[in-house]
Amino acid sequence: MNIHEREIRDRHALAEEIALAAGKVAFDYFSKRETLVIETKGDPQDVVSIADREVENLIRDRVSHGFAEDGFLGEEYGLVGGSSGYTWVVDPIDGTSPFVSGMPNWCVSIAVVHDKVPVVGVIYVPCHDELYSASSGQGATLNGKPLSLDPKKTIRNALTGIGANHHVTPASVGKIVSDLLGAGGNFVRLGSGALMLAYVAAGRLVGYYEPYMHAWDCFGGYCIVKEAGGWHLPFPAEGERLTRGAPVLAAGPGAIEDLQRIAGIGAGDIAAA
Amino acid sequence: MNIHEREIRDRHALAEEIALAAGKVAFDYFSKRETLVIETKGDPQDVVSIADREVENLIRDRVSHGFAEDGFLGEEYGLVGGSSGYTWVVDPIDGTSPFVSGMPNWCVSIAVVHDKVPVVGVIYVPCHDELYSASSGQGATLNGKPLSLDPKKTIRNALTGIGANHHVTPASVGKIVSDLLGAGGNFVRLGSGALMLAYVAAGRLVGYYEPYMHAWDCFGGYCIVKEAGGWHLPFPAEGERLTRGAPVLAAGPGAIEDLQRIAGIGAGDIAAA
Repeated sequence: MNIHEREIRDRHALAEEIALAAGKVAFDYFSKRETLVIETKGDPQDVVSIADREVENLIRDRVSHGFAEDGFLGEEYGLVGGSSGYTWVVDPIDGTSPFVSGMPNWCVSIAVVHDKVPVVGVIYVPCHDELYSASSGQGATLNGKPLSLDPKKTIRNALTGIGANHHVTPASVGKIVSDLLGAGGNFVRLGSGALMLAYVAAGRLVGYYEPYMHAWDCFGGYCIVKEAGGWHLPFPAEGERLTRGAPVLAAGPGAIEDLQRIAGIGAGDIAAA
Repeated sequence: MNIHEREIRDRHALAEEIALAAGKVAFDYFSKRETLVIETKGDPQDVVSIADREVENLIRDRVSHGFAEDGFLGEEYGLVGGSSGYTWVVDPIDGTSPFVSGMPNWCVSIAVVHDKVPVVGVIYVPCHDELYSASSGQGATLNGKPLSLDPKKTIRNALTGIGANHHVTPASVGKIVSDLLGAGGNFVRLGSGALMLAYVAAGRLVGYYEPYMHAWDCFGGYCIVKEAGGWHLPFPAEGERLTRGAPVLAAGPGAIEDLQRIAGIGAGDIAAA
């Protein structure tokens, strides 16, 4: 094991530990959610609560104790640069809308990025006690069991996850749905992009497409999907671009071409990303 | 308590008991789902397995032991008439597609219909150990806790569930999505209509719309939504019409008008249904 591998291994171990601890705190808030004050971020459908902020603070504290020189990007409090070459990219509660509504479809997502690539991905789903975990070259696991995608699954014999938000027009979301159905596919939308990416890695969904997401929503899932044998669209991760949104697409081997076509993504987009 | 009330109470008690037993058997199949042979019903996205059939047989047997003169309509084996005036309407596993994919979004749905009205509704969600239960005039509960809908929730500050299948065109499903988003709403699709109806009753979703569903998908949820203080579109339940599909719409008080408009349902449809 070289130094780089050891650096990743140590961060992977901490990411798993933190995801479980963060999930426990988030679940405590979830259990008493009727007392939470829900705020909105401009759009009334884009909600946030003290739970999101407290869980992000917990994760920031734990990372800064373990790896003081790493950068940190969280959904709630933004980017703090680092000097080690590693940046943690975190969504404390992905699926805040299901969370505040009382549905179990939410998770904690933690990634570590090095040289623009997510080298660690950990997603913890407290309501189901499921820990999805991966690091570069080490494979992906769900609660310790290795994940490996089935190439026979396609959009026609399996479910595809989709997502959307106010960054894209209602008509364009309707078109994604009708194009997917028209191609013989079928969709779910669980309300948490990170959770649906984890489900792609577990083979529960054959792919996931959302036309605009942020790095904190997708980096954890991207690492896990890739290590399970899937493919994902590169995400622009250079410097400040890391904080902006981009299309997100991940798929098992048998669904890549169909979903690229439905998403209108060509070889040029993939090279440019 | 008059005779009719006692007849309903006794069936309600048995429905709860059967839903829990059926959920346990279904969960055992779910835990070993990698060994299940999955068949399709014409459309490759419309799947069924031995689990659906075995669970329906269990429910039929238990009902015929308890109430031999009641009718029974199940998704897998169809309608058997009765002489008591009561008909059980059952989906042994609603959300077979999530079930066979390994997602937790599926449930057992049991309703009892009398004089075209669902007078008992019980939905059990094995992966979350949640029992939604209601009977006419007795209110709705989730794991014994009374459910009561908040009239301040609208499509603009809460999530709406949607569903679709191959009975409707891809374009019409796309239009539902874009109309809902265009009206300031947001959607989830969990892959089980009965589960989403239960979530409407629990206030986790503000409404549910699917342009074509069967009685076994919606009758349990309809009873629970109504008893929680919500509204649902009448379902044509006379004789053989019970086995055919119809639009399904349920909503909390603050979302009825918006969802009727999006579904294109007017006062005439409601009177005619």
